Amino acid sequence: MTDGATTFPLAERDIPTHWVNLMPDLPEPPPPPLHPGTLQPAAAEDLAAIFPPGIIEQETTTAPEVEIPEPVREAYKLWRPTPLLRARRLEQALDTPARIYVKYEGVSPAGSHKPNSAVAQAYENARAGVRKLTTETGAGQWGSSLAFACSLFGLECEVWMVGSSYDQKPYRRSMMRTWGATVHRSPSQLTRSGRAQAAHDSGSLGIAISEAVEVAAGDPQASYSLGSVLNHVCLHQTVIGQEAVKQLEMAGETPDVVVGCVGGGSNFAGLIAPFAREVLRGRARTRFLAAEPAACPTLTRGAYRYDFGDTVGLTPLLPMYTLGHDFVPPPVHSGGLRYHGDAPLLCALVRAGVVEARAFKQTDAFAAALQFARTQGIVPGPEPAHAIRAAIEEALAAREAGEARVILLGVSGHGHFDLSAYDAYLAGELDDPEFSAADMEAALARLPEAPPLA
Amino acid sequence: MTDGATTFPLAERDIPTHWVNLMPDLPEPPPPPLHPGTLQPAAAEDLAAIFPPGIIEQETTTAPEVEIPEPVREAYKLWRPTPLLRARRLEQALDTPARIYVKYEGVSPAGSHKPNSAVAQAYENARAGVRKLTTETGAGQWGSSLAFACSLFGLECEVWMVGSSYDQKPYRRSMMRTWGATVHRSPSQLTRSGRAQAAHDSGSLGIAISEAVEVAAGDPQASYSLGSVLNHVCLHQTVIGQEAVKQLEMAGETPDVVVGCVGGGSNFAGLIAPFAREVLRGRARTRFLAAEPAACPTLTRGAYRYDFGDTVGLTPLLPMYTLGHDFVPPPVHSGGLRYHGDAPLLCALVRAGVVEARAFKQTDAFAAALQFARTQGIVPGPEPAHAIRAAIEEALAAREAGEARVILLGVSGHGHFDLSAYDAYLAGELDDPEFSAADMEAALARLPEAPPLA
Repeated sequence: MTDGATTFPLAERDIPTHWVNLMPDLPEPPPPPLHPGTLQPAAAEDLAAIFPPGIIEQETTTAPEVEIPEPVREAYKLWRPTPLLRARRLEQALDTPARIYVKYEGVSPAGSHKPNSAVAQAYENARAGVRKLTTETGAGQWGSSLAFACSLFGLECEVWMVGSSYDQKPYRRSMMRTWGATVHRSPSQLTRSGRAQAAHDSGSLGIAISEAVEVAAGDPQASYSLGSVLNHVCLHQTVIGQEAVKQLEMAGETPDVVVGCVGGGSNFAGLIAPFAREVLRGRARTRFLAAEPAACPTLTRGAYRYDFGDTVGLTPLLPMYTLGHDFVPPPVHSGGLRYHGDAPLLCALVRAGVVEARAFKQTDAFAAALQFARTQGIVPGPEPAHAIRAAIEEALAAREAGEARVILLGVSGHGHFDLSAYDAYLAGELDDPEFSAADMEAALARLPEAPPLA
Repeated sequence: MTDGATTFPLAERDIPTHWVNLMPDLPEPPPPPLHPGTLQPAAAEDLAAIFPPGIIEQETTTAPEVEIPEPVREAYKLWRPTPLLRARRLEQALDTPARIYVKYEGVSPAGSHKPNSAVAQAYENARAGVRKLTTETGAGQWGSSLAFACSLFGLECEVWMVGSSYDQKPYRRSMMRTWGATVHRSPSQLTRSGRAQAAHDSGSLGIAISEAVEVAAGDPQASYSLGSVLNHVCLHQTVIGQEAVKQLEMAGETPDVVVGCVGGGSNFAGLIAPFAREVLRGRARTRFLAAEPAACPTLTRGAYRYDFGDTVGLTPLLPMYTLGHDFVPPPVHSGGLRYHGDAPLLCALVRAGVVEARAFKQTDAFAAALQFARTQGIVPGPEPAHAIRAAIEEALAAREAGEARVILLGVSGHGHFDLSAYDAYLAGELDDPEFSAADMEAALARLPEAPPLA
């Protein structure tokens, strides 16, 4: 129950001191990654070509908690703790007895949850003497966040930006350059991977990853940095969920359902982690609802297989729900959700029945985003618009059931760089491109012969 | 002194309950506005054609404090209290003993301080039975804010946007439409004022005001809403300064100097109000530094005269520092600072010697903005970039003097819709258009024969 408050601000001392690692609490840990050349389990040293030791340690640890280095906590203070607010006006508009709490990550400098991991990665790399980080970016959120993080820790930053986004979102480019990064359009002529994919001029996240990995692997002073999917990225994002735990305690609430959007899965994993641990330990019965795009429905339609993280096949193979690493999702506006796979950690939670997934059309997501903007003020990114749609459905189900359910809704970022998508929606010109199951089947048929997963 | 904290978060109960009115504390209140037709002192009823009674009351009151209506405080909870944070990384970069505290208004839905007044104005209009608000917008901050506020209180919103901004900032338009507003390019063909100014195709804030006022005056169900300059707007913005007072108390600090940017002056007046009251009452010796653009230097170069608020001459004449209502400032990127006059309240404080003004070139402002972004993360709007430049100069002066001065810096908004200006700066293509004193003199010569000001 709540005492009538709408906001639940935390103090600086409430910024978590540790990240939460769900790995040791999983009923069955995910199978190990495979080396892309040998298809044998990859050893920690296989990762050393592209990651510094601190990151490899965080990637592979089985400790239930990992201490957050003090310089990372210092950097978090630039925008954390982030707000939790009760969405009273949305509740009223929906005429629901549900109480909706919004954990909002859009107040970070880059505008999303991504800096939570970017500063942690930049710090570990700087500490290891790395001079430059390379990365990919789709919608631009991750590239912006890493550019920002590198500016804090004195690192160079080189970003390969998916071609279509590079053309459509010039201001995300400008933002990265404002923080001092170099930005390339992908596919570029600078890498073998890029030149090989030159025919796919509009690019893809997988191609951009291939380019960034290739450059990092070939430069002893450079490392690669990934914005989602891997364990350490999910780990870093658990500051979101831990703050939400404290804030809901202030509100006197326990969530019945936690809702977030899933691209690679790090924002969602970070939001649910402390709540999911309670469920895994048999101490709570919270539901977890992952909202994904109908045009790229990895969790609801994908196969649970070993697959590469990138398009070209340079990264280790991960056990995950995948549409196939060379499956090209149709051009929806949620650039951050257009990825062929998902975090192995999240996939394990789906397989364990802890997390449910649901797919949403982008037109329905934008209708929800508009309702959210006009009631709560915040103009959300297209990605969290999917989560907002899911939360609205949950709130309407609560009305149907006549139950005052408590919904925790993660809104991972603002939509200030996505307003052309809002324009298209308002003009009635937004469509819902079809997901092609046949294309997925064809892409899956091209996967290498890795050991089958149970 | 500070205990080492970086952030100073307030609770919901710390949102101010009253606005601070400096009028009764001025050594000499500003002379009254004049009716645009008769050039005689305007009566409250002269304002009734475009403003509702609640706003007229707030515009003319001499009470030292004005209670904030509960629905407005409720709306403030959507984003207030806003952060105060100590800019430790900027301090380090400047190697200064000064302590710099940033009061950041960019976390509001529209991205600046403007909603502080927009929700107050929308509420008073809705309460008075008004159905539609008309307004102008330059950079788009005010139009966005009023669109947002109207969506909260169920009002229609019609915005005339300065032509050049309309063309350069399509996403500010989209944002207004997302919140349900109608947006016109100004000069438009919809008004006599617009048709008369059709030759000035790129428009100006003054022309857009004329169009919005004309439509409101001709529609009994519509009112006009102004985003700066008037007393009630400055009043609404005092929530900024009042929160900063509490936050600096948490930090154990008293500011030596308060720095902000000035366009029409409302953000600055709102930031300094509670501190300035202490100075006016002889209880503090704080300095106040207003940063304005060298291309539109109203406070440092303008004449203290009666002048219209708009270009065409529909509004009452106000006693203010002005460059002349039909002076067209050169095209700098700080759209929010390109206004020919200033709030009469602020002008009175300048005349009383309480506020100092300093003008800055936009290239210097952008250099400061870049340093701020790369140290503190926040990408500021071009308008507060001027204040950041001023604060940096103050911090360097403190280093020179070897004094640990305390600087309160108001950063009125983010620059997410201004990144093309950053692009130009980074490409070395940003120039500093000259202010023409001759053009100002010519514009001043065209002012009507109003009573001279002392």
